Amino acid sequence: MSESENIDNLVAKHPNKKIVVIQGLGFVGAVMSLICANAIKTEYLVIGVDLPDEKNKEKINSINNGIFPIEASDPKIDKFFQTSRAKNNFYATYDEYAYQLADVIIVDVNLDVDKKSNSDGRILSYNVDLNGFKKAIKTIAGNCKEDVLIVVETTVPPGTCSKVIKPILEQELKERGLSSDKFKLGHSYERVMPGPNYIDSIQNFYRVYSGINNESADETEKFLKTIISVDEYPLTRLTNTNSTEYAKVLENSYRAMNISFATEWSRFAEEANVNMYEVVDAIRMRPTHSNLMYPGIGVGGYCLTKDPLLASWAKQNHFDSDLGLEKSEQGVITNDMMPLFAFEYMMKAFALSSLTDKSILILGVSYRSNVADTRFSPVEKFYNFCMNNGANVHLHDPYVKYWEEIDLIIDSNLEKCLDDNFDLLVLATSHSDYTHSDILISKLMQKDDLMIYDTVGLLSNSEIDLLKSRHKIKILGRGDI
Amino acid sequence: MSESENIDNLVAKHPNKKIVVIQGLGFVGAVMSLICANAIKTEYLVIGVDLPDEKNKEKINSINNGIFPIEASDPKIDKFFQTSRAKNNFYATYDEYAYQLADVIIVDVNLDVDKKSNSDGRILSYNVDLNGFKKAIKTIAGNCKEDVLIVVETTVPPGTCSKVIKPILEQELKERGLSSDKFKLGHSYERVMPGPNYIDSIQNFYRVYSGINNESADETEKFLKTIISVDEYPLTRLTNTNSTEYAKVLENSYRAMNISFATEWSRFAEEANVNMYEVVDAIRMRPTHSNLMYPGIGVGGYCLTKDPLLASWAKQNHFDSDLGLEKSEQGVITNDMMPLFAFEYMMKAFALSSLTDKSILILGVSYRSNVADTRFSPVEKFYNFCMNNGANVHLHDPYVKYWEEIDLIIDSNLEKCLDDNFDLLVLATSHSDYTHSDILISKLMQKDDLMIYDTVGLLSNSEIDLLKSRHKIKILGRGDI
Repeated sequence: MSESENIDNLVAKHPNKKIVVIQGLGFVGAVMSLICANAIKTEYLVIGVDLPDEKNKEKINSINNGIFPIEASDPKIDKFFQTSRAKNNFYATYDEYAYQLADVIIVDVNLDVDKKSNSDGRILSYNVDLNGFKKAIKTIAGNCKEDVLIVVETTVPPGTCSKVIKPILEQELKERGLSSDKFKLGHSYERVMPGPNYIDSIQNFYRVYSGINNESADETEKFLKTIISVDEYPLTRLTNTNSTEYAKVLENSYRAMNISFATEWSRFAEEANVNMYEVVDAIRMRPTHSNLMYPGIGVGGYCLTKDPLLASWAKQNHFDSDLGLEKSEQGVITNDMMPLFAFEYMMKAFALSSLTDKSILILGVSYRSNVADTRFSPVEKFYNFCMNNGANVHLHDPYVKYWEEIDLIIDSNLEKCLDDNFDLLVLATSHSDYTHSDILISKLMQKDDLMIYDTVGLLSNSEIDLLKSRHKIKILGRGDI
Repeated sequence: MSESENIDNLVAKHPNKKIVVIQGLGFVGAVMSLICANAIKTEYLVIGVDLPDEKNKEKINSINNGIFPIEASDPKIDKFFQTSRAKNNFYATYDEYAYQLADVIIVDVNLDVDKKSNSDGRILSYNVDLNGFKKAIKTIAGNCKEDVLIVVETTVPPGTCSKVIKPILEQELKERGLSSDKFKLGHSYERVMPGPNYIDSIQNFYRVYSGINNESADETEKFLKTIISVDEYPLTRLTNTNSTEYAKVLENSYRAMNISFATEWSRFAEEANVNMYEVVDAIRMRPTHSNLMYPGIGVGGYCLTKDPLLASWAKQNHFDSDLGLEKSEQGVITNDMMPLFAFEYMMKAFALSSLTDKSILILGVSYRSNVADTRFSPVEKFYNFCMNNGANVHLHDPYVKYWEEIDLIIDSNLEKCLDDNFDLLVLATSHSDYTHSDILISKLMQKDDLMIYDTVGLLSNSEIDLLKSRHKIKILGRGDI
């Protein structure tokens, strides 16, 4: 039986349901599929489509065989997936035929920034290549119904819906002899947060949306109301698609820039013998300053590391501005340098000239606490600096079993890792396995003369007081202990 | 009768009260005096001291004659002043003799940054001269009791209490033959906000404090507990005086930098036909992004325009760092350029090549809504750009009767101002007299073909819809209307 026959058979079993096709089954699309298959206000048949390469075929087979391809600490992921299995209303495929049947198509493909950096992590240049994204839209345009609703969730350079996607749809539909003014095109970005609230970060959170015209915005709104708890988290309609596209990159740029600001002050705190954690806690009591950031080892993940660059690129390329967004670009540049700062501070603070013959245990490799996500993790750069400096590095993470970016199996037995011999312990991710961990502290108290380097402010004051009786402790963003 | 006899007589009338002397009777010291004279938990005799120059003598006489020298919209100011008059426990003087009697001395003198800028507003260089501040501390040290408690409220470069003030006190006390280790020195910065909550911004708000040693921190805490509602707004003790000094400049730098970030995105919004107000409102629904700023005409006031520079100076001069705080400095530089951006946007948006023969009415000259404070108001630069471009400018403000910085009487009759002929209306401060003002809108609707330029997002959507039927409207940080 051909794949299109498979799809037809599935559709025949759900005669009265609207068909939602999700383009892209990554960190957003896969979970968005679950949300749609478990829609609050209606019943959809959901088909997830991704490209027919080896990796994606594996993912597609995994979904159809009952194994959700993303590991997540959120128990709702499994619950939603099992419900969709029971209802048989979520199917994955690489066959473009699915787009022909879709009432709604959700675009969740990636749009990357290509950064060129030197070995320090400093960005030398960057580029945004829209070709892959345009190809994905052309695939939709070459197959979709003329009156389809397309909702773009991908973070795109502002201007993309009106200047790139709309013209492609109009042209392809015309070429197919169809009406080119009946499709509805909306933009509504997600605020997905992999981790313990993965599902809720879509289903139970605020959302902004827009359309290329009023009807598109209306249809987008109607659709979002079926999958999101809008009574508790009301939707906000913005004037045009530029505005929602702009909003998404603005909010991530704001966050990236605030982190880069904290970096600068973190260096100052170390020099002035100030405990920046203590200071930030004190300042955060002011409601106007509640979002001030702690110091840290760096910024990772897919969004904050690129969105300010997407925005700056769009300003110059979609709106012909002479100037980019300098402060926002500088934010990313500074953040990308944080692992180097963290490494250099360690060498200086412990008066180390080389790491040859030194054993280092690094706890945590993901970029965020309590998730398995290692995309652009700052720990990767930090690890490379240690390795290049001759260290013998051992890595532990309770969530990441295999570190794809550097092709390494990661140890998940904390007790065993701590029993081994090492000279230097680096706390790199504040997983809850490490915070207030009796095992961690008691194992460390059985050793002598370690160097302990906390890059994320994970240790509590009482833990520090205990540990400093036996070990040397340094904390990023903090003066002498 | 000599001034010192006056003081002695007053003290004799309050035999069992501790004496609090406030050094500096400016925007902070004058109101801090009222707070102490109306202390919550005890009764103090308060003596305010300032320098014996003409301006300060006038201020001192004004206080002693029953007229509080700062105009404020907060009704508590008058209430607190009248109570202190009735109790006869607040006296102002230029006589240093007061310091000899003090149990507690609060330092509220200014510490300025000297900026050199070009005519565009761009900072070319800046300097911090500690000499005036050191002199003030020497005056205290030459007169105070050896066991006095000194609480510094002035925003100082981090490191000042331990590296500058403490050595001066020790040396002077030694030279006076007194013990040099009995004084208590604390630092606890204010978060004063002139305006309708002037008193509450001190008495009912969070506070951070520290001391040069434990006893100093303890005594500072005890004192603060007598004047601040600590049950509702608990105090936070930080490890050392560097930390509180650092906290103050950090919080203001954070604010300044967030404003400068909004500036950059404001330019982008104008180019991309985005309404940044609408976008910021949508993003602020996220608790992590609630402090994102609106666009505006610029930053004024005494603190945000200099504190990041104080910090950067301290990093290099008190802690011998090779690097300043580049991002924080850039924030001030950008903010100082905002009036120029606002002016250039106006010229471009209305396609004006010159303002010769143009009449402009500017509403609002203070830097903040609903206050009379014009210190470093961005409207000053904007006004100068208009004047230098040949415009005939008329100014209105409901709070500022006399604009000290440019020696000008300001009109306070809004109706009359609006009846006059003008070509261009500039909304420069969002005083509540202008927001949702029936007079403003109805007067404007009686005119034709005005240019209306809202630099602070003061007009509501419905007001804009009404006005645009008769006038051309441009709004900073917003695309076409």
